[in-house]
Amino acid sequence: MKKSLLALAALTAFAGAASAQSSVTLFGIVDAGVARISAGGTHVTGMTNSGYNSSRLGFRGVEDLGGGLSAQFWLEGQLFNDSGDGSSTGGSLDFRRRSTVSLVGNFGEIRLGRDYTPTFWNLTVYDPFGTNGIGQAMTIGAIAGSGSAAQTATAVRSNNSISYFLPGSLGGFQGQVMYAFGENTGGIKTNNYLGFRLGYAAGPISAHVAYSKTEGATDAADYKVLNFGASFDAGVVKPTLVIHQEKNGAGVKVQSIEPGILVPVGPGVIRASYARHDIKNSDNDWNKIALGYVHNVSKRTALYATYARVSNKGTQNRTVANNGLTSPNASPGGNASGVEFGVRHSF
Amino acid sequence: MKKSLLALAALTAFAGAASAQSSVTLFGIVDAGVARISAGGTHVTGMTNSGYNSSRLGFRGVEDLGGGLSAQFWLEGQLFNDSGDGSSTGGSLDFRRRSTVSLVGNFGEIRLGRDYTPTFWNLTVYDPFGTNGIGQAMTIGAIAGSGSAAQTATAVRSNNSISYFLPGSLGGFQGQVMYAFGENTGGIKTNNYLGFRLGYAAGPISAHVAYSKTEGATDAADYKVLNFGASFDAGVVKPTLVIHQEKNGAGVKVQSIEPGILVPVGPGVIRASYARHDIKNSDNDWNKIALGYVHNVSKRTALYATYARVSNKGTQNRTVANNGLTSPNASPGGNASGVEFGVRHSF
Amino acid sequence: MKKSLLALAALTAFAGAASAQSSVTLFGIVDAGVARISAGGTHVTGMTNSGYNSSRLGFRGVEDLGGGLSAQFWLEGQLFNDSGDGSSTGGSLDFRRRSTVSLVGNFGEIRLGRDYTPTFWNLTVYDPFGTNGIGQAMTIGAIAGSGSAAQTATAVRSNNSISYFLPGSLGGFQGQVMYAFGENTGGIKTNNYLGFRLGYAAGPISAHVAYSKTEGATDAADYKVLNFGASFDAGVVKPTLVIHQEKNGAGVKVQSIEPGILVPVGPGVIRASYARHDIKNSDNDWNKIALGYVHNVSKRTALYATYARVSNKGTQNRTVANNGLTSPNASPGGNASGVEFGVRHSF
Repeated sequence: MKKSLLALAALTAFAGAASAQSSVTLFGIVDAGVARISAGGTHVTGMTNSGYNSSRLGFRGVEDLGGGLSAQFWLEGQLFNDSGDGSSTGGSLDFRRRSTVSLVGNFGEIRLGRDYTPTFWNLTVYDPFGTNGIGQAMTIGAIAGSGSAAQTATAVRSNNSISYFLPGSLGGFQGQVMYAFGENTGGIKTNNYLGFRLGYAAGPISAHVAYSKTEGATDAADYKVLNFGASFDAGVVKPTLVIHQEKNGAGVKVQSIEPGILVPVGPGVIRASYARHDIKNSDNDWNKIALGYVHNVSKRTALYATYARVSNKGTQNRTVANNGLTSPNASPGGNASGVEFGVRHSF
Repeated sequence: MKKSLLALAALTAFAGAASAQSSVTLFGIVDAGVARISAGGTHVTGMTNSGYNSSRLGFRGVEDLGGGLSAQFWLEGQLFNDSGDGSSTGGSLDFRRRSTVSLVGNFGEIRLGRDYTPTFWNLTVYDPFGTNGIGQAMTIGAIAGSGSAAQTATAVRSNNSISYFLPGSLGGFQGQVMYAFGENTGGIKTNNYLGFRLGYAAGPISAHVAYSKTEGATDAADYKVLNFGASFDAGVVKPTLVIHQEKNGAGVKVQSIEPGILVPVGPGVIRASYARHDIKNSDNDWNKIALGYVHNVSKRTALYATYARVSNKGTQNRTVANNGLTSPNASPGGNASGVEFGVRHSF
Repeated sequence: MKKSLLALAALTAFAGAASAQSSVTLFGIVDAGVARISAGGTHVTGMTNSGYNSSRLGFRGVEDLGGGLSAQFWLEGQLFNDSGDGSSTGGSLDFRRRSTVSLVGNFGEIRLGRDYTPTFWNLTVYDPFGTNGIGQAMTIGAIAGSGSAAQTATAVRSNNSISYFLPGSLGGFQGQVMYAFGENTGGIKTNNYLGFRLGYAAGPISAHVAYSKTEGATDAADYKVLNFGASFDAGVVKPTLVIHQEKNGAGVKVQSIEPGILVPVGPGVIRASYARHDIKNSDNDWNKIALGYVHNVSKRTALYATYARVSNKGTQNRTVANNGLTSPNASPGGNASGVEFGVRHSF
């Protein structure tokens, strides 16, 4: 096996380039772990990916156009590094985590392409476990079940989107609005998306509200999300809160609340959360608790351990989520639990 | 979301590398737009990609072998950045735009792999709209309809090809010849390809002729292309011309002619073309006009707007082409039109 | 076609990065050739890839954590550059050659992810033709035929693996052990893998033994591999030896022996090998001879030529292996032969 170590850089080529202020950056994360999940009276043990942060590979760049204006691009794909696959949709590398081109200036940012929907962010930012690994409380899109194409199309990200972001210099006030085309012929609105997120982040305080509506074939089939997240960084402890409501296209509405906490301990942090998920007009609810510790070996490399337990009610049979390991369902109304140990390396 | 910005470059590793004259370059284009297409009595609006230049991601490199000789490689894949997909053939990133390794010297270049066929180039070089977006006149392979596997295999690019290119130092004279293996067992010739392109480009003048033949199962099923392109850069205006003849494996022959013009206006350029497509022994012909403007914000970033209209005759029902948006067909003998606005960023 | 040559490197971004000891390297190989294979009374001619080294594209990096400890990642995918495809499993780029994250220190290395199985290495290291092109004697996994899922899952690489490697400072003594999860529910062992490789490499001597067992649904369905490889570099000549035994899940056991030789000739090397494959309790055995020459134009670029011939016995109908060209089978008990010429460029 040849092991040439030529770095991807030509100094002379670079020096001679016209756009000296420009940069292209390769970046990524490789996160691998081992998990054991018990559910439905049985268990499974194996390797997971993305237990702390989503494994990914991406390319992004900034071109300074002068006058405070810049052009930017971002291409980012998922990695399933326990099996070497590069995609959640077909086994190979795509750029479905994000594929955008932007114009950025004092006016803010206009962004075109496939991107996260505004309502996704509160779930990952204000959950101590983000939307990764067995500890995550809110697997958006899965919360209310897969009730409609509209939900599948826009729960986390949307194709064909145009977004506007407020500039970063508004004293902590932040905002974004996204419109995405359903691309139907003849004025049919199915999958047309509109969403926004507004908030404030300065000093120890961070709080955001977000709302979105994805058109279904009928008004009753619309997919709607409304959520709120907040955190207060008191130094020795950082409490968090997510409140989330999601109505899928089949009429299932779920209301969720998740208080959480982050406690710095030397180079590490203890994470804990408790989530309640209440399906309206149903007794098939479920709760989840999660407890974990992340040890930062360096800024880029961390070791982590997580424990989580789901308590189902009625005929609900949820288990703990993960990437890379197929968990059995819990018994109806039964419990599921899991432990996960892993290493996250970013570059 | 972690946002480490480590650039892909190890200075020490680079300085210590044996081949100091070598370089590997990452390059790409992210081109996104919004288009509205009207055809068949209805319309569709949505996001497109590659409206001005094909979105792509690639890696290429040159190793100086001394004595004027170099080894080169080129790996380039398509991006469908409105949806984050990386391929036209399966949703993920492949390198089917070009995957070649070359030996280059004073004798010219020998190139092996998947590459553009010689007959493709005149269509993209001498059409003011290239082969991108709603303005392109000649969607090669689609011109005569998909009549044979031979056509599909070699209309734009071919697998399993060996090419020879004349060196660049022949006073403006240029030439290339390509042979590609059909890879059949036992001397069967189907999909065996042979094509060439010859021309001249110096000062204001550029003109090329190209011919190719891809073997069908029978002589009647051969796929043949013959075309000519020319341009004259008079400074304030650059007229262009493409003449193209294509016979697919089902015996359909189309003759096309497309005069065009490019008019520089400050940092931008106005583009216009008129194309006539004549199917032999048929009244189902069609014409196309296209008008556009490209505004170069920088060398790498451009904004563009294009209008195009197709006029069908007989029972022809063509619409304007694009990437990323599914257009309805025109009514038989009816018209189709489109507008497209976008941004092209290259890196 | 835009041809900007901006290298992927931002000097200022790099200089400002926190982890100055870190590096990320893009690497790859593009290997293309032309082969003609005769078998079964017919022949096929066409373009191959990976005739000398496997075409690939990868990203890897090292982060120095201090105290002799480092974090490393490795993402590597196959290229089928004769057709531009990026994967053996679906046409696009994945990272199924290797996707790992490691912690490396004075204690050795702990590696998680998809990686080569220990029993693969002797076949590629001690065969003068490696496991590439028409000359390779041992197409592991294909040797005993595809008898079980266990074999497919772990013959060359395994998903979900944890490996430990001895440190490099043991006076030439080397060792690795790998465990891989079958990831079955409820204690079922199918596809659970355990393997190791031990050896010595110092001065002119190199020798390794490896063993693995992949659990089948029953003990009889276990897939087991045992092999030994050695070489002695006498300067003017380097003899090699591989002894290999493989039992697939259908009970087919094959014993193989392959003496080989490498003879340096100026900037090139002559390669030759003779392999005998003996299926136990069967007369359908086969032998193979291979002869080739590699001419190193530079450290990174080589030209190669190979001739190989398979002699089948009983009803065996093996042909010579290659990537990118579909060979007919040999006639039962007949012969197959091939010639291959190509260029290998690494970066």
